[in-house]
Amino acid sequence: MENRTLRVFKTTTYREKPNSDELAFGRTFTDHMFVMDYSESEGWHDAKIVPYEPLKVDPAAMVFHYGQSVFEGLKAYLSPKGEPLLFRPRKNIARLNQSNERLCIPPIDEGFLLHALKQLIHIEKDWIPSSEGTSLYVRPVIISTEPFLGVAPSKQYKLVVILSPVGAYYKEGINPIKIAVENEYVRAVRGGTGEAKTGGNYAASLKAQEIAAKDGYSQVLWLDGIEKKYIEEVGSMNVFFKIGDEVVTPQLNGSILNGVTRSSVIEMLEHWGVMVNERKLTIEELYYEYQNGNVQEAFGSGTAAVISPIGQLDWNEHQMVFNGGKTGTLAKKLYDTLTGIQYGQIDDPFNWVEKVLPEEKIDKVG
Amino acid sequence: MENRTLRVFKTTTYREKPNSDELAFGRTFTDHMFVMDYSESEGWHDAKIVPYEPLKVDPAAMVFHYGQSVFEGLKAYLSPKGEPLLFRPRKNIARLNQSNERLCIPPIDEGFLLHALKQLIHIEKDWIPSSEGTSLYVRPVIISTEPFLGVAPSKQYKLVVILSPVGAYYKEGINPIKIAVENEYVRAVRGGTGEAKTGGNYAASLKAQEIAAKDGYSQVLWLDGIEKKYIEEVGSMNVFFKIGDEVVTPQLNGSILNGVTRSSVIEMLEHWGVMVNERKLTIEELYYEYQNGNVQEAFGSGTAAVISPIGQLDWNEHQMVFNGGKTGTLAKKLYDTLTGIQYGQIDDPFNWVEKVLPEEKIDKVG
Repeated sequence: MENRTLRVFKTTTYREKPNSDELAFGRTFTDHMFVMDYSESEGWHDAKIVPYEPLKVDPAAMVFHYGQSVFEGLKAYLSPKGEPLLFRPRKNIARLNQSNERLCIPPIDEGFLLHALKQLIHIEKDWIPSSEGTSLYVRPVIISTEPFLGVAPSKQYKLVVILSPVGAYYKEGINPIKIAVENEYVRAVRGGTGEAKTGGNYAASLKAQEIAAKDGYSQVLWLDGIEKKYIEEVGSMNVFFKIGDEVVTPQLNGSILNGVTRSSVIEMLEHWGVMVNERKLTIEELYYEYQNGNVQEAFGSGTAAVISPIGQLDWNEHQMVFNGGKTGTLAKKLYDTLTGIQYGQIDDPFNWVEKVLPEEKIDKVG
Repeated sequence: MENRTLRVFKTTTYREKPNSDELAFGRTFTDHMFVMDYSESEGWHDAKIVPYEPLKVDPAAMVFHYGQSVFEGLKAYLSPKGEPLLFRPRKNIARLNQSNERLCIPPIDEGFLLHALKQLIHIEKDWIPSSEGTSLYVRPVIISTEPFLGVAPSKQYKLVVILSPVGAYYKEGINPIKIAVENEYVRAVRGGTGEAKTGGNYAASLKAQEIAAKDGYSQVLWLDGIEKKYIEEVGSMNVFFKIGDEVVTPQLNGSILNGVTRSSVIEMLEHWGVMVNERKLTIEELYYEYQNGNVQEAFGSGTAAVISPIGQLDWNEHQMVFNGGKTGTLAKKLYDTLTGIQYGQIDDPFNWVEKVLPEEKIDKVG
């Protein structure tokens, strides 16, 4: 971080806040955003909190043409005392730099970005909704802005952090979803960008999701791109299966996202003494175990839904129904415990939660 | 096309045109651009030619986060009579719609876009440089603009066409390049987006290109993402090898770009009676044939360089030098013939070239 000054320019026209019970995901944004620019001569510079407004971007900016961009997603929660809390934000910021590395984007100062995030959330704290299951979604994104049509890493970037108050992911409480194994399309492959949070992975997933949605599925289960047999992810979530007396999740292999909720699930299960096995798992093996009555639960994990039980998984002509299509006890316990910690309602044995303290110094008010 | 009106808003501040001998690739843009918007209710609408200026894009626009974008690249050339010519523009526009289909972007009216392209080029015809090897690069791009953080196809898009006067790709004439086989990183895979011109493919390629450049290579040769043995592309070009008495190029398989120059090379070679074999080709086979003295030439094909001879290809510890590191006769003949047709200097047996006629009607001047 070449210049650690954070300036704040407050808006003069405040937006109306939506009702807590009318919140959707990612459609409403707050009054302010954080922006910071990168140039070769100045490095990351000109960090400031400004009114939320459209970005002015050259039509030749590389992000539009060559997809050089990375992002993160985390949430701020309101504690019972009304304090804003963040869940493991340092892991998201560290992963942002891992994505930067893969996409040839210059690294950001992790401590400064955390500081800036907290300042922004503090300024926008009245936007954090307080109804059960609601939160303030935090979206950092880095885009390549150099106006150049050559295929090469950009020499100019813009980091933007926007905030969106979001409703409970499942309006009627945690609810099992129906998913289908994707046999044709591929999300990511070894040697590709699957482990990075970069736009291209999500763009590649749209077609399969669109087809699955038409067939009545809420997500697809992605298999590996090489042999199309190893289970990788569900939609944009990591995936877990309770098989016999252990919980199995695909091991990180370079094409699976290293989810913060995934890590938290694994650590929590181990804390409870539940055996977790990170390993390769084929769809054939899963079906074999299912037929033998050994698959008791299946669920996805991610920042948006936290835990998403899988009620039904269709694989070609085979249908697997887990736990009678109902939320399993382990999925429910994980959901209750993780959200309890995130909202500061229960003990936090791992010190995962960080307060957004009002006394943190704002360097300079513009 | 729901609304075929094309309005024109001329700039009042004209930019200075660069000298022909100072032109780089994709760094200078002309005075005007074409823009057209898409919404669910209006379809593609509000087509207009406007002064070149930054786009105002919401920071939550999907293109920044989920990479939903497609583009094309073609060139306008000045004929000996000073008429602007386009080379097979309908193939580029058709491919734009094929990319749209893969990326869940609503199709554009191909005839209307061609009309708009020609109008834009006609207005900017003084920007087409006239020195040998120079041209006006035409870049259509479609970006997803809906401000929404859910992973789903956008409901709003913007199509933009910008123009850039470009210099001769090889300042000192056609010149062989040195490339390396990429063993670690993958550009695209079967079931992915390799056949589409979408940002994510190019973002994924940056890291390998950066490493190769440090090692003194101008491009990498991509192998297939599944078995890492079949030759796919070179950098952002298609690739050809003259082996024995035939020319071999990797067959289209869903992860190789269906290049317009690639098609033109194949058709021209067949027109000349040269045998062309579109088939799978492993790097092992190529090396085997090389060792037996059967590989006479290697070259890439693409819009930017047209034909790019490959002087040297390094594969792990193996080094292959083609035609003594010099431009081969076939590559030179293809380059001379294709550029001759593109510039309207020689006979065009396939009617590949289209004139940008000044008399084409401009619907309405704003």
